[in-house]
Amino acid sequence: MNSMVALAFLAPDPVTSLMLGLAILLMAAKIGGHAAVRLGQPAVLGELVVGIVLGNLALVGVPGLAQITHDPMVDMIARLGVIILLFEVGLESTVGEMLRVGRTALSVAALGVLAPFALGWGVGALLLPDSGPYVHAFLGATLCATSVGITARVFQDLGHSKSAEARVILGAAVIDDVLGLVILAVVTGMITRADVSGGFSAVAVLAVLAKAIVFLVGSLVLGVLLSPRIFSTASRIRARGVLLATGLSFCFLLSWAAGAVGLAPIVGAFAAGLILEDVHYRGFVARDERALGELVRPLVDFLAPVFFVLMGMRTDLRVFAEPSVLGLAAALVVAAVIGKQACALGVFQAGVDRWSVGLGMIPRGEVGLIFANIGLSLSIGGRPIMDAATFSAVVVMVLVTTLVTPPALKWSLARRAASRP
Amino acid sequence: MNSMVALAFLAPDPVTSLMLGLAILLMAAKIGGHAAVRLGQPAVLGELVVGIVLGNLALVGVPGLAQITHDPMVDMIARLGVIILLFEVGLESTVGEMLRVGRTALSVAALGVLAPFALGWGVGALLLPDSGPYVHAFLGATLCATSVGITARVFQDLGHSKSAEARVILGAAVIDDVLGLVILAVVTGMITRADVSGGFSAVAVLAVLAKAIVFLVGSLVLGVLLSPRIFSTASRIRARGVLLATGLSFCFLLSWAAGAVGLAPIVGAFAAGLILEDVHYRGFVARDERALGELVRPLVDFLAPVFFVLMGMRTDLRVFAEPSVLGLAAALVVAAVIGKQACALGVFQAGVDRWSVGLGMIPRGEVGLIFANIGLSLSIGGRPIMDAATFSAVVVMVLVTTLVTPPALKWSLARRAASRP
Repeated sequence: MNSMVALAFLAPDPVTSLMLGLAILLMAAKIGGHAAVRLGQPAVLGELVVGIVLGNLALVGVPGLAQITHDPMVDMIARLGVIILLFEVGLESTVGEMLRVGRTALSVAALGVLAPFALGWGVGALLLPDSGPYVHAFLGATLCATSVGITARVFQDLGHSKSAEARVILGAAVIDDVLGLVILAVVTGMITRADVSGGFSAVAVLAVLAKAIVFLVGSLVLGVLLSPRIFSTASRIRARGVLLATGLSFCFLLSWAAGAVGLAPIVGAFAAGLILEDVHYRGFVARDERALGELVRPLVDFLAPVFFVLMGMRTDLRVFAEPSVLGLAAALVVAAVIGKQACALGVFQAGVDRWSVGLGMIPRGEVGLIFANIGLSLSIGGRPIMDAATFSAVVVMVLVTTLVTPPALKWSLARRAASRP
Repeated sequence: MNSMVALAFLAPDPVTSLMLGLAILLMAAKIGGHAAVRLGQPAVLGELVVGIVLGNLALVGVPGLAQITHDPMVDMIARLGVIILLFEVGLESTVGEMLRVGRTALSVAALGVLAPFALGWGVGALLLPDSGPYVHAFLGATLCATSVGITARVFQDLGHSKSAEARVILGAAVIDDVLGLVILAVVTGMITRADVSGGFSAVAVLAVLAKAIVFLVGSLVLGVLLSPRIFSTASRIRARGVLLATGLSFCFLLSWAAGAVGLAPIVGAFAAGLILEDVHYRGFVARDERALGELVRPLVDFLAPVFFVLMGMRTDLRVFAEPSVLGLAAALVVAAVIGKQACALGVFQAGVDRWSVGLGMIPRGEVGLIFANIGLSLSIGGRPIMDAATFSAVVVMVLVTTLVTPPALKWSLARRAASRP
């Protein structure tokens, strides 16, 4: 009680400790991001690595940051950050673009989801035979998605944003994200359902699948029909920040709706981003306001790094002392890299380099981590789907796939350019 | 337990309920802001009123929003919002401008703090004789500050941003905010100290005052000396969003430091904003990035309305059934309006209209609400400093002072223009 009083005297406002945590995480994120960019890597890689360092300082005798790792307020800020990040990623594409990417992107995406899912399941079945099919399916799901953000950044950094390979990969990555999110929804729904009823039910799986499809198709169709009207009404509202507030409310409502039907809230945030197009808020831009993507960007810059550094901090390096973790991590990396090379088989379009497409699909980035993080909060009969060792193996997989892509892609595109007349 | 399981199935991600709360608060804020702007009032007024309506829906038989009012995550988002708001307000002024506003602004500010403080204390002593000197002092403190944001907005709306009156009022309002925050710090520190030791101590008051002055002067001097170096180092960092992250980290660190020495975190956030000047991040702007104020703006647009709507929602209209609340509210309004007219006596500069200065100093806005909100979390011997009735009276005072200023100032400036040749 005495220490409570002393604490209250020192920090009467509960926001005080959050302030220090956020300041540390933000500074760490930028230092890590800087180091990664200097080494030619995406900034997110540095955020993860600096998080791993901060989260494991106790191993070298520097304690004190565990409070931040387990602060529920920091956790909520991180979750908010990843929701707004997926909203921003969604804003960068449109439903129309998704429909236009055509056969090549679709077959690349389908192969890029099926092969890693099967390989991930296989790795789980081989190395974690006692964990049961849900854990194996969840491992497969974490290997499915391609990180749109990282892929786009790599092409941007290499000056190939407008190449045919970039268009195919980005189109496929968008479809991949949706497919991966549907798989995540199905697997998560199956696990939650299994935990409540204690068994597997084909009807339950179909119900989850139907809910996922109805939500996605329903929100896309309704959203595309209604959002122009919503934004045209909102553009008549005379107050500061109406466009941002309307866009975020739309994102939050779809996130909530996704969560309410049992899907991950990020599914709703991504769908909200896909639905909203520049033309919907023409009324705002006409009166000299910024585009929605530009308004959302500072929010992502502030909140998303909190998520990635926190993810790194949750990686317990001690589990690497166990050879089984390293084995699982290595197997997942191989499955992740080889699985995405199946994408090359989906390229039928002339003039598109198969090697570059396969290599460009490798990075898992934030989506793999989001999946793994959801796995941490799921359990069947009190036994978590994703234990500390498996989570760390997934983080290693994300790190390695993110790390190998820029140099591999640089090599592949240079080889391509050299072979051309 | 069963409902827990059902809830977990429906909402596996804890962020889901926050999503709905934020979407409702954001939409409510913009609708309220729109109505206020249509009526020629500042948007913040509409946010408060719509909050009062939402928070009291239970009175007309519509329940269900009490969950949002008491959600700790929504509360934390609101606290974060008000910290970033005060940072933004601080960014709009510089330490140099504060030093240059000179004798007129200083005497206006001093009179605009002393008179309302004395009158507020007097109202407390007269109408709440049993509450003791701390409550009276706290009431006086809530009457001190002038709302920089609202004052600036009113002059902007009326097209008088560059008038001599506007410069004097804005300069005085900046000093006022600091003086008010120092008074808040002193009163809050005294109350916290009294609660711990159970008595009043002149040494303790001096210690709090010394801490407040050392923190403010120290952070201003150190900040002005160090921030150019910090930002020049940061401008060499190659990662997205470094300027925003550096600025926010600076704001959060000073907020935390203010909280750690017993001051309100908003004091630190405001000081951080005052310290940072455009010239410090010239390196960022040179490479085509936005100015810090523009980057912070979307954060304020998203987070601050959550604070104001939530403040309104915490106003319990049932207490207005008690005549004593209405009496206290009326007395506070009179003290608040008359107290700031003392500012007119501080105007010695030729060509500056005394009436307009006195009327322009009236709005209390967010700062009065922030003070009242801090009062809600303070108590002496288990008895809260600010009970529901007193809090509601303060909200009424803020509403009325915010409401009367735009028409009063419009009248005063028109009268002035007419009297000129």
